[in-house]
Amino acid sequence: MAATPVWSVDPRTGKQLEQVAAEATSQEVDGAVRAAHASRAALADRPTRIAFLRAAADLLDASAAAIVAAADAETALGPVRLTGELARTTYQLRAFADSVEEGSYLDVRIDRADPGLAPPRPELRRYKIPLGVVAVYAASNFPLAFSVPGGDTASALAAGCPVVVKAHPDHPATSALCASLLRRAARESGLPEDVVAVVHGFEAGVELVRHPLVAAAGFTGSIRGGRALFDAAAARPVPIPFHGELGSLNPVVVTPAAAAERAEEIGEGLAGAMTLGQGQFCVKPGLVLVPEGPDGDRLADALTTAVAKTAPGVLLDHRMRADFIRGTQERGALPGVAAPVAPGAGPGESAAEGHTVTAGYLTVPARLPAGDEAYGLLLEECFGPVTVLARYAGPDEAGAVLRRLPGNLSATLQLSAAEAAGREGSAAALVAEVTALAGRVLVNGWPTGVAVAPAQHHGGPYPAATSHSTSVGGTAIERWLRPVAYQSVPDALLPPELQEANPLGLPRRLDGGPVSQ
Amino acid sequence: MAATPVWSVDPRTGKQLEQVAAEATSQEVDGAVRAAHASRAALADRPTRIAFLRAAADLLDASAAAIVAAADAETALGPVRLTGELARTTYQLRAFADSVEEGSYLDVRIDRADPGLAPPRPELRRYKIPLGVVAVYAASNFPLAFSVPGGDTASALAAGCPVVVKAHPDHPATSALCASLLRRAARESGLPEDVVAVVHGFEAGVELVRHPLVAAAGFTGSIRGGRALFDAAAARPVPIPFHGELGSLNPVVVTPAAAAERAEEIGEGLAGAMTLGQGQFCVKPGLVLVPEGPDGDRLADALTTAVAKTAPGVLLDHRMRADFIRGTQERGALPGVAAPVAPGAGPGESAAEGHTVTAGYLTVPARLPAGDEAYGLLLEECFGPVTVLARYAGPDEAGAVLRRLPGNLSATLQLSAAEAAGREGSAAALVAEVTALAGRVLVNGWPTGVAVAPAQHHGGPYPAATSHSTSVGGTAIERWLRPVAYQSVPDALLPPELQEANPLGLPRRLDGGPVSQ
Repeated sequence: MAATPVWSVDPRTGKQLEQVAAEATSQEVDGAVRAAHASRAALADRPTRIAFLRAAADLLDASAAAIVAAADAETALGPVRLTGELARTTYQLRAFADSVEEGSYLDVRIDRADPGLAPPRPELRRYKIPLGVVAVYAASNFPLAFSVPGGDTASALAAGCPVVVKAHPDHPATSALCASLLRRAARESGLPEDVVAVVHGFEAGVELVRHPLVAAAGFTGSIRGGRALFDAAAARPVPIPFHGELGSLNPVVVTPAAAAERAEEIGEGLAGAMTLGQGQFCVKPGLVLVPEGPDGDRLADALTTAVAKTAPGVLLDHRMRADFIRGTQERGALPGVAAPVAPGAGPGESAAEGHTVTAGYLTVPARLPAGDEAYGLLLEECFGPVTVLARYAGPDEAGAVLRRLPGNLSATLQLSAAEAAGREGSAAALVAEVTALAGRVLVNGWPTGVAVAPAQHHGGPYPAATSHSTSVGGTAIERWLRPVAYQSVPDALLPPELQEANPLGLPRRLDGGPVSQ
Repeated sequence: MAATPVWSVDPRTGKQLEQVAAEATSQEVDGAVRAAHASRAALADRPTRIAFLRAAADLLDASAAAIVAAADAETALGPVRLTGELARTTYQLRAFADSVEEGSYLDVRIDRADPGLAPPRPELRRYKIPLGVVAVYAASNFPLAFSVPGGDTASALAAGCPVVVKAHPDHPATSALCASLLRRAARESGLPEDVVAVVHGFEAGVELVRHPLVAAAGFTGSIRGGRALFDAAAARPVPIPFHGELGSLNPVVVTPAAAAERAEEIGEGLAGAMTLGQGQFCVKPGLVLVPEGPDGDRLADALTTAVAKTAPGVLLDHRMRADFIRGTQERGALPGVAAPVAPGAGPGESAAEGHTVTAGYLTVPARLPAGDEAYGLLLEECFGPVTVLARYAGPDEAGAVLRRLPGNLSATLQLSAAEAAGREGSAAALVAEVTALAGRVLVNGWPTGVAVAPAQHHGGPYPAATSHSTSVGGTAIERWLRPVAYQSVPDALLPPELQEANPLGLPRRLDGGPVSQ
């Protein structure tokens, strides 16, 4: 049987650019996993691993022009955005190298023997070890930062786990190029290049999550695809952790005082956040609670003006475009829903030929007709440049909508200056209320930037994430490790991380006391 | 329909002692979960929660005589063991109260805004919040330390999560008594008593893991029961974490040098470890790799002498006894298996009437006949006072057995003095080899004590555990929390844990730097 070719496609035209690879056969998936598994011992060497992560960042930076060109050709995300995304990606690789060097992610805890306790306590020394081969499922919308060289790969490699990436079909050429650079960095750092591999094809992705030597998975994508892989991971004879980021509405609550104070600013800010990257961000604000009345109307007017000015854009692929057009039509046709700026197919082209979409937004009363299940659709993410304004008459109506929401990556409050200062209203209670809904809570900002930082949390209640971990930030490395405790193991037999003399200078906690070096 | 009664049964006689409760109806399960859910806000108060955990420990200690009598009557574990188990249980409650007071489990991380970075970094403040109602599935073999007032309950309450315990049918009276004391402690600490509830019945347990307001589960028990609940947790519309401890062989490797040096000591130690608590410990050594030849023979002889002297004992219930008798018979009948001391039904009684079992052990050559799948049974846990000695001719044979093992809670090495000191042999390599198999690694000890300590890890690769967390020790609290990050949230609106002035004096990490107070 001939291998199924994998093509790079220009979403601006729908034209095939080049055949990049073939879909991986079962044998090829198995081979990639086995080769990755065999590289674990080499990757366990800490200085080599640190050098490798830094070399990978350097090589990617040195190849920026080629990477950005490849990614732009098959994603239409544009060189400015892609240049920024590459910088974020290489910063991330270096940040994880620094984490490995610093070592607190190993969470070293040492309890000295205490014969005086009843029962006597033996000596215990605990740290964390890598899980093994990690399967990474790349995202459509971040061909770099959440794909082959992205956060899942960087954090897994930093943890000491080899990675097999299932490339996203929207950017196979970029994936192949980045994989070749990562593998070259491995080779040049003295590691087997098989510490990172890429496979293409839907079936390859399914086989990957079922492979007995795959120990964990990271995923960024849709609820449907992510849930299917989550289910497969849980149904294995030996279940594995599946850290998936699946979908999020990212609600925004605008208080009446905020609308009174900053209606135009909020409307314009919202327009920018919902159209950024053609609305193809997992943290795009998809539902905005706006007060009824003239202040809310001013906000909507500002949004109308700004969104209407937005130029038509190209989505990542043609299926996504079709889904956007159908999804916005279905939502717009619901009773009570209006479309002050109608989202949909781009102008001047027939639906069959067209390649662009136009941004728009919908409005709906927050007081939803009882029992109307169709409104559930408005509480589902619609990928692309559209958002929904739910107009509410008071805190009870806003609260009723919030209580219907599934889990989210982010929740944002737009507050007045007095509310933000805690001098007026019940903003602290509102912060607590939306904390229950999301993994990140913002005040007077927009959620579309996700900083790579030690304290970041990019996750949230299901379906925002399938686990309670983060896929961005310092603690993302924790996903790929498991603790092990050594009881009464002589110093000479301990790994260096746990030896009494602390040869690696790791932060550690003695007898449950504070962390010290 | 009449409620199904729940009886306390004396395993020494099979006689019903008293009717303790009735199996919970669907309405009762729902009511318990909703009442627990409604108590979250009260439990969120940190000083109250600390006081409650300490009051619970004090009340349990003050009721020691009644608790031990109730538990002994329905488990036959004996007052000495149960008194120790209660002390461990109340120590655990107090240790988690101390953890809440100390606060490092919140893993507070603060990144200050950095406008100089590209892109500029916003202020981020991250800590962990409780998940919500936790379902706890009590263990048969620890009516206190892994049941109603046990580690899952204590760590979940400490995290701020209300608990609904599914009582184990082997000790319903003990469960009811402990629940009443915990609820009294809650009341006396100013909390709703519904922060802890107990339900009885198999169906109640299934309904609990499916309840939309249950946010996580902890389980200690069999692979069959635990896997069914794990599958139900993963199949929910909103999946929840299921931290199950399911089963473990706890392999022991005796090196030739260790056997040469301490054959008798090891044989006697093994006899003690495998018969402790009638072999009903999840960390009972169930497979022991012993060298062929005269030193290994001396070890086996010492084991024979010690095990043969062990008095018959009563298992926790009659189903368990029947399983032990059948399980040891099936294993003993496998080709190549011998039984130097035959385990099975206790003496002087017919199988139908008897209530005791006798301890014993089996031997088998490590070089297993190729393709004989029946030997897989020897690699499955057999609950009760039995272990299997696999006699090996060299490191290759020992390694081949180790590579066939599923995940374990513990792995133990018996080494010579020179090996333990790293002066001879390849003991460090052996430590690394068994680290891949287990959550805890011991040298020259026995795994049957699991100290409650900050650095403890009681878990391991599946089926030892269904997640990478621990059910014993300081980090067990991490299972019931999820991180949340606040971005650019004004100080006045932040929870006290994250406010700039650090009013609670929590340890925290600034800009990814070292932890400080």
